[in-house]
Amino acid sequence: MAITLYELAAANPDIRFSPYCWRTRFALAHKGLPTDTVPWHFTEKDRIAFSGQGRVPVLADGETVVSDSWEIALYLERRYPERPSLFGGGRGAAHALFINAWADTIVIPGILRMVIGDIFRALRPEDQGYFRESREARFGRPLEAVAEGREQRVVEWRQSLLPLRGVLARQPWLGGEAPDYTDYIVLGSLQWPRCISGFALLEDADPVRDWRDRGLALFGGLGAAAATV
Amino acid sequence: MAITLYELAAANPDIRFSPYCWRTRFALAHKGLPTDTVPWHFTEKDRIAFSGQGRVPVLADGETVVSDSWEIALYLERRYPERPSLFGGGRGAAHALFINAWADTIVIPGILRMVIGDIFRALRPEDQGYFRESREARFGRPLEAVAEGREQRVVEWRQSLLPLRGVLARQPWLGGEAPDYTDYIVLGSLQWPRCISGFALLEDADPVRDWRDRGLALFGGLGAAAATV
Repeated sequence: MAITLYELAAANPDIRFSPYCWRTRFALAHKGLPTDTVPWHFTEKDRIAFSGQGRVPVLADGETVVSDSWEIALYLERRYPERPSLFGGGRGAAHALFINAWADTIVIPGILRMVIGDIFRALRPEDQGYFRESREARFGRPLEAVAEGREQRVVEWRQSLLPLRGVLARQPWLGGEAPDYTDYIVLGSLQWPRCISGFALLEDADPVRDWRDRGLALFGGLGAAAATV
Repeated sequence: MAITLYELAAANPDIRFSPYCWRTRFALAHKGLPTDTVPWHFTEKDRIAFSGQGRVPVLADGETVVSDSWEIALYLERRYPERPSLFGGGRGAAHALFINAWADTIVIPGILRMVIGDIFRALRPEDQGYFRESREARFGRPLEAVAEGREQRVVEWRQSLLPLRGVLARQPWLGGEAPDYTDYIVLGSLQWPRCISGFALLEDADPVRDWRDRGLALFGGLGAAAATV
């Protein structure tokens, strides 16, 4: 029985833009697991209520339901140990947790403030209200004010990618000689703005750009073929 | 034959303050390898010329000489595989490289600008000239100007530790259930200002502080017992 993955979708349901859902998509491709993906919108809480919470990714694998991209990665590794490893065994997952936390606390918050207006514009009208209200409550100001000054802020954000460049100067992937879940964590984070926004985050000469493009070409161009705004 | 480690020393040769040397000290303790540590000062390039370069840590293990803390860690893991693992096998080292790069590009540059004046004051007069000249050339301004405003900058620096806090919310060490080289990378980076400066970087309630103190207590209090200014 195929796995089902609920993914965050824009008004155009082909546009799947969640950084966390992309981590899971790449992880499933790495494991070579056939997957049915289902578009889901911010306000459709009832459609994933069976997961016991209200956010995607939600993965349904037979009777098993898992939410949270990190938990899903650990689940897939545990459930399908005979397939290519996401973490490489040993303390691979323990160390990968740092990269996950770095992406979640540094990379993603920086991107969100730059593309928050683009996200809003790409949503269905019925999701726009929810998005504006919940995000404005979180930031304590209007979406438009959060998004302001991104041309300046992107320079500082690019600086925050220094650790990634440090790794890429020594090895081709975060996972070493071949890509693994640590790459998908950051690739997913960059696929998000790529799908939902026209704003150029990475400079052409940035080694991160080259690494991202190699990542988008994996699995027959899974990432590169994704629908974008 | 015991291993010899050349460590950066202050005017008081008991004060060993290099973040990179501390990574190696913790790594050697983790491996349970008896080590003779030798104080070395910035201008004593001739004393480590046998290593083919001019920076510490330099490790001499019989006929083998290795410099650069990351290379030393890889060497110890390869040379002493029967002793407790620094990286946990698999892709542990590949993933740890990211934590190493994060410490080197984010944590350490932030600390350096806060303690650069304290370092200068703790050096021998003959090293002070070298230190001032080389660092002022790197920063393009006087040491005193680099150090300015640290009470404000420390707030932003603490923010940069968010990924570490993210990990510590889920597991007790960067290495998982037990400390490993990924912990020593960051512990060494924090031991540096602790030894050379009285400036308080970490707030008492910060989970990073608790983790650091657990780290300093390892190996019979190796880090906690270190001489400080």
